[in-house]
Order: sequence, then structure tokens, then C-alpha cells
Amino acid sequence: MVGERKKIQAAQAPRIMEWPGGRVHEVAGFRTACMYCGIKSQAGNPDLALLACETPAAAAAVYTTNLVCAAPVVLSRAALRKSKGRVRAVVINSGNANACTGAQGERDAGAMARLTAKGLGCKPEQVQVCSTGVIGQPLPMKKVGDGIAELARHIKAGGEPGDFARAIMTTDTVPKTAACSIYLEGVRVRVTGATKGAGMIAPRMATTLGFIVTDAAAEPKVLQAALSSVAAETYNCMTIDGDTSTNDTLILLASGKAGNTPVQQIKGSPYAALRAGLYWVCDSLARQIAADGEGATHTITLFVGGARNNGAAVTAARAIAESPLVKTAIAGCDPNWGRILAAAGRSGAIFDPAASSLTVQGVELFKAGTPAKFDAAEVSNKLKERDVSIVLMLGAGPGRAKFYTCDLTKGYVEINADYHT
Amino acid sequence: MVGERKKIQAAQAPRIMEWPGGRVHEVAGFRTACMYCGIKSQAGNPDLALLACETPAAAAAVYTTNLVCAAPVVLSRAALRKSKGRVRAVVINSGNANACTGAQGERDAGAMARLTAKGLGCKPEQVQVCSTGVIGQPLPMKKVGDGIAELARHIKAGGEPGDFARAIMTTDTVPKTAACSIYLEGVRVRVTGATKGAGMIAPRMATTLGFIVTDAAAEPKVLQAALSSVAAETYNCMTIDGDTSTNDTLILLASGKAGNTPVQQIKGSPYAALRAGLYWVCDSLARQIAADGEGATHTITLFVGGARNNGAAVTAARAIAESPLVKTAIAGCDPNWGRILAAAGRSGAIFDPAASSLTVQGVELFKAGTPAKFDAAEVSNKLKERDVSIVLMLGAGPGRAKFYTCDLTKGYVEINADYHT
Repeated sequence: MVGERKKIQAAQAPRIMEWPGGRVHEVAGFRTACMYCGIKSQAGNPDLALLACETPAAAAAVYTTNLVCAAPVVLSRAALRKSKGRVRAVVINSGNANACTGAQGERDAGAMARLTAKGLGCKPEQVQVCSTGVIGQPLPMKKVGDGIAELARHIKAGGEPGDFARAIMTTDTVPKTAACSIYLEGVRVRVTGATKGAGMIAPRMATTLGFIVTDAAAEPKVLQAALSSVAAETYNCMTIDGDTSTNDTLILLASGKAGNTPVQQIKGSPYAALRAGLYWVCDSLARQIAADGEGATHTITLFVGGARNNGAAVTAARAIAESPLVKTAIAGCDPNWGRILAAAGRSGAIFDPAASSLTVQGVELFKAGTPAKFDAAEVSNKLKERDVSIVLMLGAGPGRAKFYTCDLTKGYVEINADYHT
Repeated sequence: MVGERKKIQAAQAPRIMEWPGGRVHEVAGFRTACMYCGIKSQAGNPDLALLACETPAAAAAVYTTNLVCAAPVVLSRAALRKSKGRVRAVVINSGNANACTGAQGERDAGAMARLTAKGLGCKPEQVQVCSTGVIGQPLPMKKVGDGIAELARHIKAGGEPGDFARAIMTTDTVPKTAACSIYLEGVRVRVTGATKGAGMIAPRMATTLGFIVTDAAAEPKVLQAALSSVAAETYNCMTIDGDTSTNDTLILLASGKAGNTPVQQIKGSPYAALRAGLYWVCDSLARQIAADGEGATHTITLFVGGARNNGAAVTAARAIAESPLVKTAIAGCDPNWGRILAAAGRSGAIFDPAASSLTVQGVELFKAGTPAKFDAAEVSNKLKERDVSIVLMLGAGPGRAKFYTCDLTKGYVEINADYHT
């Protein structure tokens, strides 16, 4: 998919303009409402949100690949098929993942869809349901049901949008949004997203949810192609602890209100521009998740180049990004290049260590199979910066990948061990 | 290979007797010598060891699968082939891994083999070389060379054996040995091993070395078959942090001094008995490594049953054993069953969560896809014990696996982040 993208970029570089502070409800056709309905123990912390489109939005989604997946994921996946990619609303609760909850969980997810559909006046299959938080506990459905009815009334009455990005948080420390404008044959189109990431108190699962809206007009199959290929390079090239959650969901909704000629083909410059805008937003959101990783003190951007192909580059990058030894070394500001090479070496990617080079914070530490001479104290000092750059060149081909991750600190262990069920 | 073993065990259960305190040099035909030659910064801490056989021992070995592998691994792998599985000695240094050291590292590993061969009067290809410790730094070859000459003289003079298991340690907190007796057609045979595991101070690699000796008479190909199949179920079913080292090596030497009829076939009761003894020793050593994992406060024994096949069971078990979320939960004595199921779910092993059950410390937490009712405080209390048992049944077939690991604590982060290059 990087190959495809490269080709498109060579033909014409789509113009992307950041839209500072742009929020989901500010994109034409979309409304949001948020509230505290009583799921979270900390009263007043919003835990229920509704994202609605005035008319059925063209939609695409990617869901967790975890075999143990939550009831709302099972329901949403089926609903997207049944509705043929037309979605009126997404209802999201935080504080409870509705995962590993058996038949009761399935009934509860179904009820969330039905109640939302009833409140907004659409079909249940036009509703996507997302949950995040504690796993293995039943949802307080009376509170959730009352909350959904209230949010639907609020949206129909044109009430305040609330802080959508905050309402979907669990133990995230900051809300995460990204927004840009693109041009489709001269028509300005917005692409805006909100996401959450990797907050948890035992026994809560790290769960990633992402919601992207655009006022572009585009077919569901076009949106799905763009979302799948962009997710592969952004959300799926980011890790905090390697533990894929049971609830991961990334949804893209297009209201079609921008007035552009509907994008119907998975090629050509309108598709390239749409994909570029989507990439810009998803890349920013994925990086924000890594930066807010539990206990993180460093945000790591890892480039692997010179791999046999892009797949091999991702394989090597993932092994490095998930290596506890690499992550603790960065936490300790230690330019421990041996751990980075060793992680790539065990990854399964084929390369020749003697042709490999490694650069950390701009300083070459390893060159063509031999340790480079460098000032360890100087590099350690550079590693005190929050943002860390690692570039590993494998000398085996044209493959490349970018990966976001964070370091592994005592704070991570504290969050995940010391807080109890 | 488990299938093969099962068949053999059904035919006749080999008798295995523990040999408490048995050491490598006490097995007929073997001698050891150890010293401090000056590699480690802490003077007096032994860092050079020699294990020699009076006559060429039949030998087998398994080495790291890491593509970035150390010079001594490359050398030893080639030497074993060249010598057709006949080995006179193993020379081991701790404190320096001789990995990622380029052409100089290859020359140094070669020199270690030649100097050992010269001292003992054998061919260089009859010497296996192992190194463990800091990576990316040249060996102090003058000290190492003088040390090897001294150890060879010591062995030829019949001097004290020294503490071999301690001389191969890096930051291990205890030496690790295991010994047993088996019977091959009525002849008593010893199987004894020493290993090291997972000690590290930045930038040192977690390195596993294992040395097993036996006085059995057996062909190299028989030893290799037994060692490969046993390693797959013991050393390769154990993890501390998922970071495969550049130097892992497990060597089996057979002196043939026990007087049994040489084992020449990879079947039948003598092979079964030899394999059983080898399994007993390797299983014990692998568990001791997990127990001494950096910062560990719990030793975890994980059984996965009911998988589609043994490979799928290992896949699920490895994902659980490497999951930072599972490992921090155990560190916190938290019966967080959702994390265990979620790790199995993302592993790639195929199973039906609705048919799965999970038992921790003897208490069923999850049954047939639904949370079981249990006293969380009681289970948390049981998790305060050092030894933790996790049994996950997947309900998908006859596959099973056992895995050893340890918890993830602030101590691990401290060892790997706070100590500097």
C-alpha cells in the first residue's frame, strides 16, 4: 500500500492544510452530544457520547483482529455489512468494555443500538456501538439506556456538542484530536478525527477507539479502501505494549455535505487527496496515542529503511517497538544500540547485519556491521528530550516503515500492577 | 515432537532419579576449571571457564535463531559441523558477549578456539566457544588468552574444578544446575547441566547459555535429535522479556564412559530413557532461569490445553507469557483474567472463546465464555505466593503446551533503565 501511495504522490502531491482546533461536530452534517451517565466511578467524568449524522453517512471501519473480541465489535461489524456502509450514528460508552460478558453482553450491545436508533429515528443497523473500559463486567443498562435517550433528545434539539474527545477517554491524560482541510477538484473538504488510547486501571484493557468524520461525498467502498490502507500505515504501525485490545475500532463517516463530486473510484487525484487528508489525521492521532502511553516519558519515532520490502520493514520495526529491552533503555536515556539491532535480528525480517547502520537522535552509533565511535554521554544527553528518533537502515532493499511507540517505565508497571481489581 | 514423546512414554515410562547436588565435573570423563581473568569489572568474580572431555565427546547443540548473532555462535556452529559432532572442550567467558564486534570479534573467537586447542592438545574445530555479557565491545584478548592457557594447564594437572555454574553467570542472582540418573539397558547413566539466564546491566544482552554433560555413549545424530526436541519443549518454552539474545547456546556433550551399549537409533527404549533424562534436566534449568528473571517476584507456570494442536498451544502460551499486561497483573497479585484471554485471542491461535476456561492458582475464573463467580480477594491472596499456576483450556482440540515465565516489575525496569552504559 505504501507502493500505491508513492505512485499517487509522484503523480500529484495533494494539498493538505492543518485546521487547528477543528472538532468533529464542526464538520458539516455531524453533531455530537456527551454526558456522565454513571458508568465511571468518578462522578462528572463524561462516559457516554453520541456522534450523529443528519443523513446516512457513507461509512467504513476497521475493527480489532483479536479473536476474543467484545460484543459491540461483533455487533458493529455485522451492522456495517447489513446497512451496506450507511451509518446514522455511533454511540460510545467509556468505563466499561462490554468484553468477555457472554450472552448478556451481546444483548446489551444490541439494546444500545436499538435505543439509539429509536431516539434518532433510524434503523438499528445504521448505528455503530463502541465500548471501552473494564472487561468482564455487565453494563449498567438502566443508566446507559436513560443516557442514550437523553443524548438523542439533546442532538435533535440542537444542544451543546460537549467535549467528544474527552467523553471517550478512560485513563488517557489528554484528549486527542486532529483536523485538516483538503481540496477535491477545487472543493474544500474537512477531515477531522478524535481518538483515545491506552489508558487502563486493572483490570481494564488498553483500548484504542478512533472516529474520523469528513464532509466529503464518497462511496463506502472508496472510504473502506482508503481507511484500510491508511490504518495499516498509522494505527497498525503504533504500539504501546503489544497487547492488542478486544475493542479496537476505527470508524470513518462521510456526510457528503461539502458539495464535491462524489468520489467513486479508488484511483485518481480526488482519491489521492482524500487518502492524503485521512493519512494526515490518522498519523497525527496515532502519534498522540503513543505519546500518551501509560507511564511514558519518551515518544519514539522509529524509521526502518533498506528492508527487503515494506512488510519486512514493519516486521523489524514492530519487534524493536515492542522490545522491553529497547523501551527500558530509552527510558534510561541509554544509547544501547545493541538491543535495537538484536530486536531486529530476532524479528524474522531477513537482512545482513554487516550492511546495517543505526542512527539515534541524529548520531550514528553503528555503521556497516561495526560499532561507530561516538560520545555516549552526548547521545545520552540528547535522549533526555521527550521526542526520540531512531533510524535503522538494513541495506537489504527498498522496504521502509515508520512506527510510533513510547518507552517502558516504572510508571507503566505501577499503573498496571499496583492498581487493583 | 510431543506426539513422539507421548508414544514413547506410553510404551515404557523411563525411570529418572534426581541426583541432588550433582555437578558437571562429577560426570565420568569431564573436567572443569574456572578463574577470574579480568573481563568483569568486579575483581574476583569468575569470568572464564573451561569444560573439557578426556576423549572426544559426541556432541549436539542448538544456537540462537537471532539473525544478529555473535561471533562465537557463528564459529561454534561451523566447528560442530566440521568436527562431525566430536567435541573436546567448551571455553566460556562471561562479562563480554563478543557480539556486533565485526571482523575483530570473529578473529577473537577464533583465537579463543585455537588457544584452547593448543592448551589441551586437540584440533580447533573440536572446541566450542561461548561468550555472554556486554555487546559491542572488543574482548581483552591478552587477559583471555593468558587465562585460557592457565585453565588448560590446570585441567591437565587435575586441579580443582571450581564453580562452573557460577563462572558463567552475568547478573544472575544464583547459579543454576540440575542432575539426574537414568538407566540405559540396566546401565546407570548421569545427565547433568549448568545454565545461566537473563542477567543484564545496560547495554548487556539477556543471554542464555546451557551446558549438559552425560557419561552415556551415544551417536551425535542421536544426541542432536534428543536435544532439538527437548529444547523445543523446555528452553524454547520459556521467556523473560521476549528478547531473544544474540548469544544463546545450548550444548550437550556425551563422554561415553558409562559403559552402556552406544545409543545409535532415534527410537526404542534407550533413546526414550536418554531423552527423558535430558528433558528432566533441561526442564529444571529452564524453570530456574524464569525464576531468576530480572526483577521477578513470581515464577509463572502456564499450561495451555485444548488447542487445535501443540503448535497452536505454544503460540497462545507465548503470547500470554510475553504480555506486559499479564505480567504486571501477576506482579500486582491481580486475578486479571481478561488480560490472559485477550493475549491468547491476539496470538494467532484459532479457538472459540465461548468454549474456553481459565483457572488461576486452582480457582476457576472464566468458564465456557462467561466470567465465573469467584472471591477476588481470595485469589489475590493466593497470588502472593511466589509460584503461580495458570491453566487455560481452549476447547478446540488435543494440543497442549507448558511455558515458564516470570512477572514484570519495577525491578525489571530499574535493572534495564537505571543502570547505564
